[in-house]
Amino acid sequence: MSDVRVAGTGLTPFGNTPDRTGRDLFAEATIAAFEDSGVPREDVDAVFYGNFMGELAEHQGHQGPLMAEAAGVRAPATRYESACASAGTAVRDAVLQLRNGEIDVALVGGAERMTNLGTAGATEALAIAADDLWEVRAGATFPGAYALMARAYFEEYGGDRTDLAHVAVKNHENALTNEKAQYQSEISVDDVLEAPLVSEPLGLYDSCPLSDGAAALVLTSQEYADEHDLDAPVAITGSGQGGDRMALHGRAHLARTPAAREAGAEAYVDAGIEPSDVDLAEVHDCFTIAEVLALEALDLEPIGEGISAARDGRTTANGETPVNLSGGLKAKGHPVGATGASQIAEVAKLLSRDHPNSEHVEDARIGLAHNAGGTVASATVHVLEVTR
Amino acid sequence: MSDVRVAGTGLTPFGNTPDRTGRDLFAEATIAAFEDSGVPREDVDAVFYGNFMGELAEHQGHQGPLMAEAAGVRAPATRYESACASAGTAVRDAVLQLRNGEIDVALVGGAERMTNLGTAGATEALAIAADDLWEVRAGATFPGAYALMARAYFEEYGGDRTDLAHVAVKNHENALTNEKAQYQSEISVDDVLEAPLVSEPLGLYDSCPLSDGAAALVLTSQEYADEHDLDAPVAITGSGQGGDRMALHGRAHLARTPAAREAGAEAYVDAGIEPSDVDLAEVHDCFTIAEVLALEALDLEPIGEGISAARDGRTTANGETPVNLSGGLKAKGHPVGATGASQIAEVAKLLSRDHPNSEHVEDARIGLAHNAGGTVASATVHVLEVTR
Repeated sequence: MSDVRVAGTGLTPFGNTPDRTGRDLFAEATIAAFEDSGVPREDVDAVFYGNFMGELAEHQGHQGPLMAEAAGVRAPATRYESACASAGTAVRDAVLQLRNGEIDVALVGGAERMTNLGTAGATEALAIAADDLWEVRAGATFPGAYALMARAYFEEYGGDRTDLAHVAVKNHENALTNEKAQYQSEISVDDVLEAPLVSEPLGLYDSCPLSDGAAALVLTSQEYADEHDLDAPVAITGSGQGGDRMALHGRAHLARTPAAREAGAEAYVDAGIEPSDVDLAEVHDCFTIAEVLALEALDLEPIGEGISAARDGRTTANGETPVNLSGGLKAKGHPVGATGASQIAEVAKLLSRDHPNSEHVEDARIGLAHNAGGTVASATVHVLEVTR
Repeated sequence: MSDVRVAGTGLTPFGNTPDRTGRDLFAEATIAAFEDSGVPREDVDAVFYGNFMGELAEHQGHQGPLMAEAAGVRAPATRYESACASAGTAVRDAVLQLRNGEIDVALVGGAERMTNLGTAGATEALAIAADDLWEVRAGATFPGAYALMARAYFEEYGGDRTDLAHVAVKNHENALTNEKAQYQSEISVDDVLEAPLVSEPLGLYDSCPLSDGAAALVLTSQEYADEHDLDAPVAITGSGQGGDRMALHGRAHLARTPAAREAGAEAYVDAGIEPSDVDLAEVHDCFTIAEVLALEALDLEPIGEGISAARDGRTTANGETPVNLSGGLKAKGHPVGATGASQIAEVAKLLSRDHPNSEHVEDARIGLAHNAGGTVASATVHVLEVTR
């Protein structure tokens, strides 16, 4: 099996650009990724594209070929939709095809245009990632669903809003150096606690923003990278995917995310590593509680202890295992279909010492990216390693 | 590389069932597929699900995990969306993962609920498979787009509405024995010619209907099939995918579909066969002209001669290479997200002599399934072979 190399990455700024179309955003990200990679567009064998709400936000389906065209690529193109894990599933299929020799070069990524729908419209559109018959029609939205998960966590393991606030403070702190981040602004624990409640116990600053943006990756087989003498020191060495019941009422435990645990376990075995080998991680912190649940599902923290990780400094930039050095979904932003690919880009940059926050992880060799859909009914995990 | 076996197939009736949800339809198809296969649900490693317009027709995204749940399966699940080729891309990724040993058992399929939107609503929803900025906003719908392709064909190669009518007559004739078909009714060339025009030169009977329905396949590795002594004589031995510019104005030639040609060429090489080896085919006849274009793109007919294939009997049930023995999209129906999987089911049944139309293809060993998205901006082709 071939190693899979990250040859190039490209991100648009994440933020409020309601007048830019998805194809406009993705084109920008791909221009950067191709330039970064040194790979010519003609060499792309297939396009793997993640998008979640294009039907509602842009009246546009069938985005695979449309986005290949926007990227200037003529190759088979498929759109993957797994809610907020859309790009994670796109990355995974690209990795499997590359390492099995089906293709040599993949353009992978995703984009989302959301803010043109307005806050209420986008919140409604996001809700279709939940079970329409049993959750959405009962009034459930994602802040409410994650608030239930947070309450269940507090009930079982303890912790409080202050603990969660430290997650938000950490991720904003990390984003200060990220010029593509939606928020480059320091916040305090008091800021988080005093912000308006969205769905108790989650407040405005416990929640990621609505974002427009795109991410693109040029991935190649090791053979292609060697043959073309690419500067591509980071490999994707592990991939895993997990699934769970869609609606929260179907879950055995509201404060656990077994889909992420299964994806992580598969990715660890695939890469031949242990959770303790992970030097840094980008995890899916759509809400502060989501980062806590991810740490525990990925065995980066024992069950019941993830809640104190940010507060006690274990996951801060200078901690043992820095988490979301990019700023995470919380501060970097969360253009849904782009997120899973943007995480891979951030981890690759951090591991190749080409990131403003690389100074915090000088010796890092292994990074992880965790992308989740809905209330983690879908999850993908990828392990990245420096090869030189 | 492992052979990929078709262990079981299941189809709902295709037709007008606007009150049945997508999950209801898919559950029915999967019950039949599991029963047909003898494979227990617990053995499924991954779910590959095709759906096109769930966001618009059912206010439901993130259908991967939802449909795994409907099927009674706990496994990672991904939704593939490539417009009318959605299930084709799902089949393709399942085939690649199976033959490369990533998984042993896949549940593959798709569903679509369309008729609840009404004719105008469904036509509008279908239009998002075209380019919203450059086609849809200019008033383009798919009957119009395929009418342009038909006119371009007539202009360049000759042919007329009567030639196309023979395609519709043939496919209705084939559907007479298909109890799951939306239409089990004979029609004449005069019926087709006298039907109301939808978009000249295409009339009502040149067009496939709006349909609700689902299709499911249980696919396994050869090793799994052997080990469990499954009755699974048909293998998927070739897979190909092609892509093209999304909007018709970007195409070099309105009467050719290079995405299908590329998908076919890849699938033929993959299977190690020539087009002349194909004994029967299910092709994507969303409109009569689409069948003609598919035959030529797949090298089953020379360029400019596909138009006469049905009229002259080369593709009829007793012809040299029967095409759409199921009735095709035209008479069997076209629940968009299900179609690509239903074609595989039909070909597998025909090749294993377990189909009411098997009598017409007693010696058939090699079948082909061609699934297309939009005006063939996406296409997948699969080759199936009897192994015993």
